Amino acid sequence: MWGMIATWRMAFEGVSKGAEMLEAGSNAGDAVEAAIREVEDFPYYKSVGYGGLPNEEMEVELDAAYMDGDTLDVGAVAAIKDYANPVSIARRLSRETVNSVLVGEGAEKFAHKEGFERKNMLTDRAKAFYRKRRKEVAGQELKPYSGHDTVGMVCLDDGGKVTAATSTSGLFMKKKGRVGDSPIVGSGFYADSKVGGASATGLGEDLMKGCISYEIVRLMKEGLHPQEACERAVNLLDAELKERRGKAGDLSLVAMNREGQWGVATNIEGFSFAVALKGQKPKVYLAKRGEDGRCTFEEASREWMEDYMRTRMAPVEE
Amino acid sequence: MWGMIATWRMAFEGVSKGAEMLEAGSNAGDAVEAAIREVEDFPYYKSVGYGGLPNEEMEVELDAAYMDGDTLDVGAVAAIKDYANPVSIARRLSRETVNSVLVGEGAEKFAHKEGFERKNMLTDRAKAFYRKRRKEVAGQELKPYSGHDTVGMVCLDDGGKVTAATSTSGLFMKKKGRVGDSPIVGSGFYADSKVGGASATGLGEDLMKGCISYEIVRLMKEGLHPQEACERAVNLLDAELKERRGKAGDLSLVAMNREGQWGVATNIEGFSFAVALKGQKPKVYLAKRGEDGRCTFEEASREWMEDYMRTRMAPVEE
Repeated sequence: MWGMIATWRMAFEGVSKGAEMLEAGSNAGDAVEAAIREVEDFPYYKSVGYGGLPNEEMEVELDAAYMDGDTLDVGAVAAIKDYANPVSIARRLSRETVNSVLVGEGAEKFAHKEGFERKNMLTDRAKAFYRKRRKEVAGQELKPYSGHDTVGMVCLDDGGKVTAATSTSGLFMKKKGRVGDSPIVGSGFYADSKVGGASATGLGEDLMKGCISYEIVRLMKEGLHPQEACERAVNLLDAELKERRGKAGDLSLVAMNREGQWGVATNIEGFSFAVALKGQKPKVYLAKRGEDGRCTFEEASREWMEDYMRTRMAPVEE
Repeated sequence: MWGMIATWRMAFEGVSKGAEMLEAGSNAGDAVEAAIREVEDFPYYKSVGYGGLPNEEMEVELDAAYMDGDTLDVGAVAAIKDYANPVSIARRLSRETVNSVLVGEGAEKFAHKEGFERKNMLTDRAKAFYRKRRKEVAGQELKPYSGHDTVGMVCLDDGGKVTAATSTSGLFMKKKGRVGDSPIVGSGFYADSKVGGASATGLGEDLMKGCISYEIVRLMKEGLHPQEACERAVNLLDAELKERRGKAGDLSLVAMNREGQWGVATNIEGFSFAVALKGQKPKVYLAKRGEDGRCTFEEASREWMEDYMRTRMAPVEE
């Protein structure tokens, strides 16, 4: 059995590519890295890799991580600038016994020495979004802006290896050096080949308060179906945050176990995700949270898919 | 009931100070911050704050975190240079809804704007250790060196608030930008006032593979005594790492629950820790792991305490 599940519609092309690789016998490490790179490289996705929206200083600072569920190897970079594929740097780092999580300039130095090519990740389109936003909030203090659509993936290969990986440019208009959940093991991602994996998207500052990806994998280890594990963890953290803080940020999770069973849960409207499984075509689904806290989903219509891409590629009106 | 528990002998003076504050009615936030600052300020502790040993570029890069168990607020800084008390910056950040984890230059900018004073954290003594080490490994590639003695604390106040905080200069000779478990929620620390808190020291790259501080708090939530929770989490992660990787790095954990019961576990020889409880004098203990995986401890002798300080303050022979 092989399978992949990933956050957001934007993961679809990557998941499709990863699925082809898994079908052809690739391992879960190569497949998840290639899948995330596909998303990083697409310039119209505003929250991951090339074309990602900048921080308040108009710099694109990127976070990414990779975890190998066989060895529990973790590699991550945070606040790294001017490298095309942070996920590949993260995966390279995961092979180090120490110094496997690097931030800022140190991460850039490592990447340079390892032969990764520098690339200016700030596109004209991202600059247009930045200028537009500055005009909208002229005179006010800059505040981070929604659009924190991290790509997070879990991948299972035919050999039973589970991996997880993430990549994001983080909150639009974030402060320089801000790190969300995506490069933080247990919060943005977790993978254990004996169990399965999980990955998160939403407000990193709130997701990390519950170590939610670790918690979901743990619940699956107790025997819960990924769907049940995702719902229980998301609903509990959502409730705790509301009780203690009056509100909860966006929390959306995807998970897959080592049998290829999968699940999602969210506390928002409009969470989309992509799934590929052996013997099935890759699909995009839209999730909906019911009054009872259960999460249902339906396949995205062709109309929705077309509209999505049209919106992403529309000119930026400044 | 109030109480504090902290990793390593070096926490003793800080814990003593925190205990006085708690006895006088301070809350767990103020007490843990003051206690960690005490450790950060003492120039003879080589792995925390002023006098901390530098990275391979001879820069002292510091990590610190703070968590409020009432609100689950988390604040952290990583790879920050030239500020005296990273724990205070982390606590200040914990009050932010977003942008509450900052790394590198971004963290320094925030600290500067918030009025924290810059201080060159590299001491002559730390430089001597660095030169000595370079000589010892002349001609070889620099490798990170043991001595990763993070101070991690859990604090409970009379009002039932639980906090956790950490501070470290990380691995001696680490790569620039390297981040361990200390600023990572769930790995280096976790606190929930409904349950208790935990904090870690050891090899960050391995501690984070098990989200071990979160796991210990979770086990306490299930009703386990802190001692039982620490042992179970440390022994499980130790075994998983050995099975999957052939070896496990140093893992040492302290925990306290909301009743002031405490526990420790370690997979190394010579782990010391400090405890203060209402109605008792602060004490330093030495932990020992038995063949059965249980952890026992005894109070450090006066001789041991004197020898410790003598060793710390001995001249560096280059």
